[in-house]
Order: sequence, then C-alpha cells, then structure tokens
Amino acid sequence: MIELVRWQSVAAIVFGDGSESRLYPLKKRRSEGAIPIASNYRLIDAVVSNCINSNINKIYAMTQFNSTSLNSHLSRAYSGAGLGKEGFVEVIAAYQSPEDQGWFQGTADAIRRCLWVLEEYPVVEFLVLPGHHLYKMDYQKLIESHRNSKSDITIVASNTMRDEDAGFGVLKINAENQVMQYGLRSDREPQNSKVAEALTRLSETNYRCIPSMGIYLINRATMVNLLNQHFPKAKYFGTEVIRGALSLGMKVDAYLFEGYWEDMRSIEAFYQANMNCIKISNVGYNFCDRDSPVYTMPRYLPPTIVNNAVIMDSVIGDGCILNRCKIKGTVVGMRTKIGDGTTIKDSVIMGSDVYEIEDDGESNTNSKSVPIGIGENTEIKKAIVDKNARIGKNVKIINKDNVEEGEMEGIGYIISGRIMVVLRSAEIPDGSIL
Amino acid sequence: MIELVRWQSVAAIVFGDGSESRLYPLKKRRSEGAIPIASNYRLIDAVVSNCINSNINKIYAMTQFNSTSLNSHLSRAYSGAGLGKEGFVEVIAAYQSPEDQGWFQGTADAIRRCLWVLEEYPVVEFLVLPGHHLYKMDYQKLIESHRNSKSDITIVASNTMRDEDAGFGVLKINAENQVMQYGLRSDREPQNSKVAEALTRLSETNYRCIPSMGIYLINRATMVNLLNQHFPKAKYFGTEVIRGALSLGMKVDAYLFEGYWEDMRSIEAFYQANMNCIKISNVGYNFCDRDSPVYTMPRYLPPTIVNNAVIMDSVIGDGCILNRCKIKGTVVGMRTKIGDGTTIKDSVIMGSDVYEIEDDGESNTNSKSVPIGIGENTEIKKAIVDKNARIGKNVKIINKDNVEEGEMEGIGYIISGRIMVVLRSAEIPDGSIL
Amino acid sequence: MIELVRWQSVAAIVFGDGSESRLYPLKKRRSEGAIPIASNYRLIDAVVSNCINSNINKIYAMTQFNSTSLNSHLSRAYSGAGLGKEGFVEVIAAYQSPEDQGWFQGTADAIRRCLWVLEEYPVVEFLVLPGHHLYKMDYQKLIESHRNSKSDITIVASNTMRDEDAGFGVLKINAENQVMQYGLRSDREPQNSKVAEALTRLSETNYRCIPSMGIYLINRATMVNLLNQHFPKAKYFGTEVIRGALSLGMKVDAYLFEGYWEDMRSIEAFYQANMNCIKISNVGYNFCDRDSPVYTMPRYLPPTIVNNAVIMDSVIGDGCILNRCKIKGTVVGMRTKIGDGTTIKDSVIMGSDVYEIEDDGESNTNSKSVPIGIGENTEIKKAIVDKNARIGKNVKIINKDNVEEGEMEGIGYIISGRIMVVLRSAEIPDGSIL
Amino acid sequence: MIELVRWQSVAAIVFGDGSESRLYPLKKRRSEGAIPIASNYRLIDAVVSNCINSNINKIYAMTQFNSTSLNSHLSRAYSGAGLGKEGFVEVIAAYQSPEDQGWFQGTADAIRRCLWVLEEYPVVEFLVLPGHHLYKMDYQKLIESHRNSKSDITIVASNTMRDEDAGFGVLKINAENQVMQYGLRSDREPQNSKVAEALTRLSETNYRCIPSMGIYLINRATMVNLLNQHFPKAKYFGTEVIRGALSLGMKVDAYLFEGYWEDMRSIEAFYQANMNCIKISNVGYNFCDRDSPVYTMPRYLPPTIVNNAVIMDSVIGDGCILNRCKIKGTVVGMRTKIGDGTTIKDSVIMGSDVYEIEDDGESNTNSKSVPIGIGENTEIKKAIVDKNARIGKNVKIINKDNVEEGEMEGIGYIISGRIMVVLRSAEIPDGSIL
Repeated sequence: MIELVRWQSVAAIVFGDGSESRLYPLKKRRSEGAIPIASNYRLIDAVVSNCINSNINKIYAMTQFNSTSLNSHLSRAYSGAGLGKEGFVEVIAAYQSPEDQGWFQGTADAIRRCLWVLEEYPVVEFLVLPGHHLYKMDYQKLIESHRNSKSDITIVASNTMRDEDAGFGVLKINAENQVMQYGLRSDREPQNSKVAEALTRLSETNYRCIPSMGIYLINRATMVNLLNQHFPKAKYFGTEVIRGALSLGMKVDAYLFEGYWEDMRSIEAFYQANMNCIKISNVGYNFCDRDSPVYTMPRYLPPTIVNNAVIMDSVIGDGCILNRCKIKGTVVGMRTKIGDGTTIKDSVIMGSDVYEIEDDGESNTNSKSVPIGIGENTEIKKAIVDKNARIGKNVKIINKDNVEEGEMEGIGYIISGRIMVVLRSAEIPDGSIL
Repeated sequence: MIELVRWQSVAAIVFGDGSESRLYPLKKRRSEGAIPIASNYRLIDAVVSNCINSNINKIYAMTQFNSTSLNSHLSRAYSGAGLGKEGFVEVIAAYQSPEDQGWFQGTADAIRRCLWVLEEYPVVEFLVLPGHHLYKMDYQKLIESHRNSKSDITIVASNTMRDEDAGFGVLKINAENQVMQYGLRSDREPQNSKVAEALTRLSETNYRCIPSMGIYLINRATMVNLLNQHFPKAKYFGTEVIRGALSLGMKVDAYLFEGYWEDMRSIEAFYQANMNCIKISNVGYNFCDRDSPVYTMPRYLPPTIVNNAVIMDSVIGDGCILNRCKIKGTVVGMRTKIGDGTTIKDSVIMGSDVYEIEDDGESNTNSKSVPIGIGENTEIKKAIVDKNARIGKNVKIINKDNVEEGEMEGIGYIISGRIMVVLRSAEIPDGSIL
Repeated sequence: MIELVRWQSVAAIVFGDGSESRLYPLKKRRSEGAIPIASNYRLIDAVVSNCINSNINKIYAMTQFNSTSLNSHLSRAYSGAGLGKEGFVEVIAAYQSPEDQGWFQGTADAIRRCLWVLEEYPVVEFLVLPGHHLYKMDYQKLIESHRNSKSDITIVASNTMRDEDAGFGVLKINAENQVMQYGLRSDREPQNSKVAEALTRLSETNYRCIPSMGIYLINRATMVNLLNQHFPKAKYFGTEVIRGALSLGMKVDAYLFEGYWEDMRSIEAFYQANMNCIKISNVGYNFCDRDSPVYTMPRYLPPTIVNNAVIMDSVIGDGCILNRCKIKGTVVGMRTKIGDGTTIKDSVIMGSDVYEIEDDGESNTNSKSVPIGIGENTEIKKAIVDKNARIGKNVKIINKDNVEEGEMEGIGYIISGRIMVVLRSAEIPDGSIL
Repeated sequence: MIELVRWQSVAAIVFGDGSESRLYPLKKRRSEGAIPIASNYRLIDAVVSNCINSNINKIYAMTQFNSTSLNSHLSRAYSGAGLGKEGFVEVIAAYQSPEDQGWFQGTADAIRRCLWVLEEYPVVEFLVLPGHHLYKMDYQKLIESHRNSKSDITIVASNTMRDEDAGFGVLKINAENQVMQYGLRSDREPQNSKVAEALTRLSETNYRCIPSMGIYLINRATMVNLLNQHFPKAKYFGTEVIRGALSLGMKVDAYLFEGYWEDMRSIEAFYQANMNCIKISNVGYNFCDRDSPVYTMPRYLPPTIVNNAVIMDSVIGDGCILNRCKIKGTVVGMRTKIGDGTTIKDSVIMGSDVYEIEDDGESNTNSKSVPIGIGENTEIKKAIVDKNARIGKNVKIINKDNVEEGEMEGIGYIISGRIMVVLRSAEIPDGSIL
C-alpha cells in the first residue's frame, strides 16, 4: 500500500503547445500535441500513455495555442474511461480572469496561474512534460531516482549529445549526475555562444554536457516557492526557473534516459518518425507494444475496404476505402479514400475526420468540386497530406522542381526539406503538377 | 416532448441465443449474437444498433447458452457510454432462484421469469427481438403503426415468401394486414404440413401468407396478462403465446418489412452475408452507413501493418500484420497475422482476441507449436477461420476432396455446404492438406 | 427516421460565461455556468440537461473567462457517457492562433472564430444558449416552430415583461410573433432610453414588446453568411447580428416561452433560486422531475452522516457530516461539515470539493488553522457560503449591522442585497462576528 | 516497470453468490453480493474496491443464483469507466453449453468450466474472493508474501479464532505459517467433530488453528493442474481442492489478516455491520476512507429534501424525501420517502430503486394502494426494510410480541434474531401492528 500511495502522489503537467517547434503548417490549426501520427494516433497520446503506463493518473494538460483539436481529442480519448475512478486528464485552457486579462506568458507563467487548480490534490511532486515528444519512459524510475537522491528538481536528459539537439537547454553535470549549470545551445539564441563555450570548457574536466529533454520532476513545495516567492515574474521554466533554482543552491539532478527520443523539432523529424513506424523492426517508437500500449481515442469505424491494391511496407488505418492503387512506404490515416490508378510512395496521408457523403448537395456542389481524399490516376511521392485534404484526379505531388524549401500556402502546400506538405482541408485541383 | 416520452417508452428484449439456428460450430463456444462478422462487429451489434438508431435506449439482452462471450461484448461495447444517461443494455443471464431451479425453458418462459426486472421502468410496449439477424429497421415506424392500429400485438413480417424461410412461423393476413392465423413451415416440424396446407388453401382467397421475422411489439399489460394469466405454462413466444392471443381474439397485426433481411439460418447464409459486405455496391447490409451507423466495442488497436500484399475485393480489420501475401474476396478480422507467401481467397478470417507475444515461453513453447494466425506459404480457399485459430506453414485449406458436408471436429474443422470451417483456437499443423 | 434525422441536425452552442451577470464574487474564480446550485448541481447543468432531454446531443460549450472549473465539470460530467455514441459536449476554450492573437471579443466573435469547428457536422440549425439560466424548455418545440414558420432566426422570448428584465434586449413583435425591432432596455446602457421609448410607443398599436431570453435558433447558412459576409466585424450576437439581420430584411420570429425562467442576473436572484428548490411545491425549477431529469457529474460519495440534527425545510447534499446542529431553510452542499452547537438559517452552503484529512500535517498546520467547513457554536443567517470556505468556531455570520451592500473581500466576504456572501476558500477566524 | 507488470499479472475471481450464508430473505431476489449496505453501496463493492485499491484491474465475477441485480449493478458500476484502459469487471454468468447442460456445481466446478475465459490474459496468479464479505485489505501485500514464500497456494486467515467462525474451514498452521491441514468447524457439518478434535489436539503443540477467510491466491498453472488433472470432479474449492493440494504435498501457506472482517454469515451480522457504519468512530468498516475509497454505481440523484426532521446517529442516502419525522440510529437508503409523524429507530431502510410518480395511474391505483416508502404516523424499531417496500400509515413494526425467530413471508416479513425484516416490494397495509 505504501508503494501505491507514493505512485499516486505525482501529478503530471503536460504542455499541449510546443512553441519552440517548427512544425508549421501542421500546427496551423492545431496544437503540436494534436498532430496525427501513425494513422490512428495524435502526438500527445505518447506522453499520456507514458503516464498511464507509469501509473500516473492525475494529468493536467495546459493549452492555449490553437487548442480546439487538442481539447476535443483529450476529452474524447481520456475523460470518463480509462484512468481509474480517481484519475483524470484535465484540460486547463488559458483563461481570462479579473486579476489577469492576458494569455499565459510561458510555461512558468502558465503553471503559476494554475497553481490553485494544481494544488487541489495533495500530490508530492509535479512532473512537467512537453506534450509532443515521442518516446517511451517509465516515469516511476525517474520518481524513484528523484526520491532516492532527495533532489529538489530532477531533469531528464538524453545520454548522448546529438548535433540537432537544442532549445531545451544543455545541462552540465558532475560525476554524480548533479546539475552544475543550465545553458542553451539554441540556434535561435546564438548570443549564448559564451555559455556554450563555457560549457565546452568545463566539460573537459570531470564534468560533461548533455541535452535536457525538457522533462522536470519537482517537489510540490519547491514549485510553489520558486514560482511565487523567488521568481514571481519568471515566464519560462527552463531558462528562468531552473537557472534560478541553481542560483539558490537547490539540489538539481539529471536523470539519464537511453532510449529512442524524438522531439519533433522539424517537419523532417516528424516525417521520419512516421516512416519509422512502418518498419517491423521498430527502430523507432513501437506503437504495438503490448506491455506499454499506446492509448488514444476509441473508434467505431468500419473495416478498411480494399478493391484492388498492391501495398508494400505501409500501415493502413481504420475505415479506409482503397480502390485500384499502389501504396509503398506510406502511412495511410483513418478514412482515407484513394482512387483508381493512383500511386503513393514514401508519404504520410493523414486521412479524414468524417465520411463525405457522395451526393450530399449541401456541402459538395456549391464550392468544392474536389471530394475529400485522393483522386484517380494521381501520383504522390515523399509528401505529407494533412487531414481532410482534397486531392483531385491526375494530380502529381512529386516536388517536380526538386525544391528544398518552398512556401505556396496560398495554393495549398509548402515544401520543407524536399518534403511536400499539403495543408489541412486544402484543395489541389485535377491535373495539378506540384 | 410528447414524442420524446413516447419514444422512450419502449423497452427492447433481445434474445442472444437463437436456438433454432444451425451455425454450429461457430456457436460452439459462444451465443449466436457473439459471432464475429465483417471484421469488426458481432452479430448482435446489428440489432442493438437498430435500437440505438431508433432511439430505443432501454435494452435487455436475455442470455443462457454459451453466453460468456456475448455478456463480455455487450458490457464492454454498450455499458456506460452510448445510450444516454438513462439508457442501458442490461444482460439478463439465466439464473437459479429458490422458486425456479431450472434454466429458461424458451422465449416465453425467459420473459415470464424476468418480468419483475422488465417492469422496473414504466414502459408502454415491449419490443421482442432475435439477436442474430442482420437488417436495418427503423423501429419507430413499427411503433407508430402499432399505435395507430391500436394493436395488442404487432408482428414484423417479410413482404416476400422465400423458399428457405421457415421456423419463425408463417402469418396469414387479411387485406388490412391483420393476422388471422399463425402457422409453422419449419423443416424441423414436418408434422405441421396440415397447417401449411391449410394456410395455402386460405391464401387462395383474400388472404395471403407471409413469413414472420420473429419480431414482436406487444403492449406491456398484454404481455403480463398473456404470460401470467392466460398461458402461465407457455414456453415459446411464437407458437404458444401468439397463437394463444389469436385464440383469445386479440388484435394481432403484421407490419411488413421490405429491406434486406438475413436470419443467419445456416453456415452458408453467414458466409454469404460476409461476402456481401465486401462489395462496394452494398447489395446486403451496409456497415458504413453514416445515417444509421453500426455500433460495436470501441477499439484502441494500432493500424494494420502491410509488408507486401496484393489485396483485392476484401475488407481488412484493425491491427493486422500482413506479410508478403495475396488476399482476394476475403474478410480479414482484427489482429490477423498472415505469413509470407500465403494466398487467401473467398474466405472469412475472424482474427484474434489478443496479440501473442513471440518469445512468450509460457504460453507458446510447452504445447502449442503453431502460433496464432496463418503461417507461411499456406493456401486458404472458401473457408471460415474462427478466432484464435493456429494455421501452420504450407497448409492447404481447400476442401481437396470437394466434400459437401463433413465433420472433422476432432482435428479442428468441419465442412458445411462445401465451406471449410476451422474451429476457434483450433491448431492445423504445418503441411496439412484439408 | 425522418424525425430522428431532423432532431439530430441541431447543434447547441452554449456560452459558459455570462459577462452581463452580476454574480461576483461567486464568479471570481469560475464561469457563471460553474457556480454550484441546489447542493449537487452547477448552473450549466440546467441548460445541458434541457439539450439532452430535447434529444440535442451535439453541444459546444464556449468558454473564456475563469473557465477552468467549468471545463473540468463539463468534461467529467458529460464526456464519454451519456450523450449517445455520436453525441458530445465539446468545450471550445478561447485560443490564440497565428491569425488571431486576441481573446474572443464577444458572442458573435466567438462563434465566428469557431465556425470551422462548428461546421464539422452537417447540422441544419444552430441553437445559441446562455449557459447560466435556470429553466426547463423542450427545444424541439422551438425547432418545430422555427421550421414551420420558415424563419431565418427564431428568438425565444418570455411572454411577460418583468421590471427587472433587461440586458438581453427587448423584441417588438407583431400579431404573428414576427420580430419588427430589437431594442435594449439595459440599466447599463441608459443611452437606449430613446429606443425603449420608441418601443413603448409602438407597443400601443398592434405591436407589443417582450423581453428576449438570449436564446437563438438560426439556420446554419444564415449564421455563416451573417458572421462572415454581412457583419464580419460584429462582436455581439444580439445587438449587432440580430439587428443586422432585421436590417437585411431577414425573417426573424419570436417563440414565446411561458414557464419559470431565471436569468441569474444578481446575487439576490441566485439566492432566491436556491431557496425555491427547497420547497416541495416547486414554485421554481424542479430538480427532481423524472420526466426531464437534471444531469450532472456522477458521484461516488459516502452517505451523509448525521450525528444529532434538527433539520427543517432544507436540502442536504451527499457526503455531509452534520454534528449536533440546527438547519432551517438552507441548501447544504456536498461534503459540508457542520460542528456541534451550530445553527444555520435561510442560507446556501456550497460545501467542499475534497475531504480534508484531519491530521494531514502538510495542508493543515502550516498556515490554515481553521478547517474546511463550519465550526462549533457558530450561527449563520441569510448567507451564501462558497465552496471550501473555512468558518471557525463561535462565529456569527448574521449581517450584524444590517448592511445593504458591503465589500469586505479582503477579509473574506461581501454583502449584496443584505445577503452575506463568504468567498470560496475564505477563512473566517474563530469568534468573528460579521 | 517490473513492479507494474507484476501487479497487473493477477486476475481476481469474485463469487457473487455465497451459498453458505443465511441472509434470506435479503437474498430472495438477489445474490448476496447485490444486497444494499450503508445507504449507497452493495456488498460486492467492498471486495471490488479492495481490488481497485490494490491495483488489480482484471476482475471476473462468477454468478448463478438470483444474479440479475448483481449483474446489473456490476455492469453499471464498473464497466467502461474506472479500471484503466485494460481493466474490466467481467460478469461470468452460469451458462449452458453442448458439453455441459447443468449449472455450476460449486466454486471449483465454476472455475473449471470458465478456465478457457480466465486464461485469456497471461496472468501469473488467480485471486479467489468471496463477494459478500466486508473488510479492507491490500491484496498486494498478500501477493508479495505469496511470491516471497514461493507458495503454490496462499490462504488468507483471520488471526483470531472467534466462536462464530465456521464454514470456510480451519487451518492448522506451523510456526512458519505453512498450512498443515485443512478442516471444517461448520455447525452445518457436525460430522466434522473428529476433525475439529484432531485439530484441537494438534494445536496444543507447535501448531495452531486459525479460521480461513475463504480467500485464495493460487498460481495459474497450479490452478489448471489441480482442477483439470488431479481433481477433475472436485466441486468445492476449500474442502476438495485445497485438501487435495495438501495431500499432493504442495506448499500451501497462510497469510494472516488482522483488521475488521465481517463475513455476513447471518441477518444479525448484516444488521450489525450497518449499525457500525453509523458511528463516526468507525469501529467497523470505513466507507469514507479517502486513501482506500469504496467505489459503487455513480449516481445523479437530486439532494435529499428534509421538511422537518430530528435526526440522530444516522446516515442518510441521496435523493430522500424526509417529512416531519424522527430518525435515530438508522441507515436511510437512497430515495427513501418518510411521512409526517413517523419515528424510525435502530433500523436499516434500504430505500427505493425508482421514484414513484404520485398520480401514476397505471402502476398505482389498480392493485397497490400503499405507495413505496414509509407512510405517516408509523413507528419502526430494530428492523431491516428491504428495497421498494410499501409501508402504510399508522403502522407499527416493533416486534410487538418480542419474537426471536418468525416466518411471516406470506404477509411480507420475517423475524430473525429479534430483528424485523420487511421483504423487498412487500406491502404492509395501513394500521398494521407487527
């Protein structure tokens, strides 16, 4: 019983928006956490599933930016069922109040303004989590380490420094994994080169530098004191609160994480994470793991109907209608319709939210001539097609000019790292060659 | 509000077992209502969905025979969510009591013994429904007709007499659709030939004969009086209670139903219903109808992974793993694994309830050498493969001797109407040729 | 089926915040819709229950101001269970987006910014509802009237003009209940006296003036055109969009409502509505109506324990602990603790969100010396005690100086219309006499 | 994670019927587990809550005798919500099958016939639980002890032998708590006096005898082997399977339990358990424990309305209507109506399942003249009034002749241990003096 009580005494605070990410235009109409991945899931499912599988069942999701899809997904996927009688995923949307008319000003500000809610249950620690990262972690091991070390704050860090790691900050740790210094190596903050330089220098000694994953476990009283007493104006958790805690001499430790971790920093990273989920070998994130299942919104869809398809190295979501087509190396999302003679390769098709009714005069005939889905004799290669897109017949989405980066949002797509990204609900007319 | 109240004032009584059906061995370990159909569904989902789509949300499911799977499906699919705050699907399993130690002795006996439960809510009529038929009906129209005609009992009947119709009884109706007589034309009850003859004779006049669908709408007080006062020993609803009501001079009317109706009388009928659901044209039952959706258990399965498959005219359920295989004219159920080099044609593969863990020593190595699913280089043709079956490598399930009917239950299959039926959890060793 | 389809084709848009109300300080930390009423409910439950009882199961709740409690209540009370498989109560919290960094600027602006969500389902009409009014209405009759009259917009109006009615606007209607003019008679907008005067003059002829209830049924296409084409800058629905529609010559009709209606315009009104729910005769809103039940969050609380109490004309919520006390004419909310020797009269005690653990050192001893609930030998008269308040021993909350209006928020209460209002989580020390 | 996996690897098997209990007539129409207790609960909630609070979320409830109420309660209370995404409470009702036409023949027979279901999930141990006992236990400690001792079977035993303990058997254990022998000391099985005598003799040495609580933790493979291989005809778990395991030399250990435990052996015990729950001091079972809450069916009832009542030492359920009455030392169940001038003392009033509508001609006027609830000027003392009873005006239920045991079932009540027990739905006419 002692173990049980301790387990339940952590509340997770998940941030649905990752303002630092560069996932536009996928986040044009939704939070990062609500971006669909691997046919059936949304990004935030990975972190919420980590919580559930780690027996953490009090989860607050903080949202503000384009939050509608995320709120809807969370309340349909996790409210009511699934977290035990006492558990919940509670969305805390940014709100106006007499004292504070503005939006949340950053992660620290958001937590501070919601402390009166977060303090409702007598938890011992808060676990602060970015909501759009892809990884599997048993947070109980983190909690155990935090408690054994009697840390004030424990920061999860990746055990290896990769070139692309940035943004969340770099931790300088000593041999006991205690954090000595918190720096930034962000491309958006080049002014920190001195910090980086200093870090590098220090790392020649007994210290070493590792990238923070932006995951913090922090004692409840410490959280309240830091946000309200010591740094009542701090906006950001990492750069201001953590640094502040170090400056106050608090015991801040690092917890090293070894496994697959993808922070979805870019369109390329998102594309690659989808491609990984196709492989049986599961080099990336395993969506089919029975021991640590990934939860999401329950579905009642009919099975996928296949007319005549050759399908290779792909995953197919529920409720698709696949006519005479070829699909290779592709993630096909829920309710995707694909027309006769169409070929799709190395792509991510997100599918559709509803079935469009064929002869539905109201929604179809007046303005939209191209139905939702992918038309006949169309070719798609290395593309991400966002939800509810309307791709016509005889279309080629192949990056014909082999452009590295392009912005054609007005006509429904952009190009990022040579990947074609068709916008949500975009209409690509018959015969277009992109 | 008047309409609303009237709508809510009907309770449905669904029989999960259809003792008259010949669906063995599919019903060896489960009620008819729990037999999987069309990848994602169970037979009973059609009738329960009819109720929900007709705004009838008080549903009692009576079960007795092999009821475990059905109870589990109903409570997971429909309890809690989905039927409005006041709605429910309540399973009434046969039970022992001090007054009555035996099982339910028939449909009428089952209702009689549960009247004290059924009377809990102040409904106006009861709607008695077989739980394993496949059809779409708006029961509200039936209710409206019943009330407008001020009937004591209304029986739903198919508008055309087919050769194979039998068992539920034949109604002789006059020009106003009032039922004059209730007869049987069952092949299992040849002694009724006199009745049939009499019916035929009568039908030459102003009367005609149509097959009952076994669906009854009956006023609450009428039900109580018939079962408790008039016919306290009647076991069966059709042959005893309806006939009795007619003999008492009650007003019994027929409601004629025009659409697709499949009573799943045989393995052939079940097989054909599955084959129909593959066709886009939807000659049969439409599982993808947005206006009258078919509900079932919510699923959280990962998407289907396709390694390298050619798929024609098939439907594919959630969470399958399809390796290098050819699938044609086949219904592939949830979590089906198909090995390299395998070909499946004109078949119904029901899939699996769980993912078997590859290296799970405990459940795999000791006795079962063949894993759940369909092995490599195997060929299946015109077969029904029940859940959790273990089909080995280099197997041929092709009815090699072109047998019409066969009983090889000891080695895991039977043949019915030239259709091969592999039993639930059966193991077909590598290299078998059936 | 035709009826069913039409019924489901209305989506409700409920506003959780009623910026015009004067319920401060009850709305200091929550939206109006989240204010507890009648022990077990929140204000918004009345409107959501009207929707459910009228078979409208697609409900969008728009929130912005102090929305946390409301979001939490809605997602726990209505998500998942209760609205049918296709139904939902979806919270749309105000959000930032690249195009629009600001908050919702008013009811019309909120709907405009969320039209892309609201249009997801192919509904025929939108039903716009204030979320904090107390009344029972069968919206189907409104819908029927709207469709029969082929109106563009139908506004619900109270059939009798009361002195205190204001704010939502006054409708001038002709003999066919068609709206000729929309005016305001708000005390906060005295500049409208000319309009009121004009209205009065007109009402001497064949026209008459009635107060709008702020409830609008509006055709989907009309809504889109008005908000996006005709009045893309309109902020408010009543004063701008409705007046605009009239100026465009649209057919706007009034639907007259006869029953009990309380718009919770003031603390006094809220207090009186609670007092009404005590009376068996039910002059006000009936919370115990079996035919149109009021839904709310499900509870698993233990029963109320009564040590030794004399209770008169009161309602008692779940999970209270009542020691030797006298309670008269009082609404006692969930989990209320009342100490020995205490007397409560003509009051609304909202109760508590959690059970405080007696010897819970962490939350109790450091700062709070007064436990949640009402201490010993205390006297409370004509007061509203908000949730989680800590009333000490030997306290008198009796408005000792008989003050009409008072603002003592710093020490935990205000006085409004001679009603004492103790703030949420306020602490009233032992021996205080207020 | 290791801990988590181990925790989830136990499935509970709860028996809803306790054939050995003497709770008639409370179990006349329901299983023991469905008997209401403490206003808001059913007996089985205690055991299911123990499971949930011990993180065991795969729960099979076996039912057969009068199971309708229990099935309904379990599916409404625990299906869907509350047990985590992977958890369930699955009712396994006794069923007919081609191989086995009969009812379950005993606990061992029931488990044996359902092994094919129970084996669905790869659990490591089964936890066998009687469903109608009242106690709080952390089963994880039992599991830990079982695993540490490498036991084949662990039996929970009460640490002290009480006079009334019987039936489940007596364990003779050695100093290491290993079970040496399993005997019976049942008053219904006096032929076991030799065993008891033998046990007594042995207990004079290093051994001692303690009463089994009928709770068994048993390894999965051991269970399968014992039921199918070694004792394929055993009907009862204790007397046959456990003794058999001992005879085979298996390692059977006792786990000693110290806390409150009530096996509800008699009406007196049930009455006393209810009386205990009134006391703030909680000498018995604590229904209000925040750390190990008791779960049950969620309720949406209106608050209790009190007209003018003096209430002492009582608990009051939701949705009651208490007119001018005196209540002392009484458990008042949900929806209880009590008339003017009525006095209730030292009683258990179970309340009602529905609100009877006052002027509901159909259900009221024809036969029943006494409405559900307790009429005016009535006096009840030391009684148990079962659900939906109709107690008239000027009734006295006081055991006027001070009878010890009495059987007046025909007129609606029995007397057991001087406690008056009014039957479910019984009607006690105006003026009756019992």
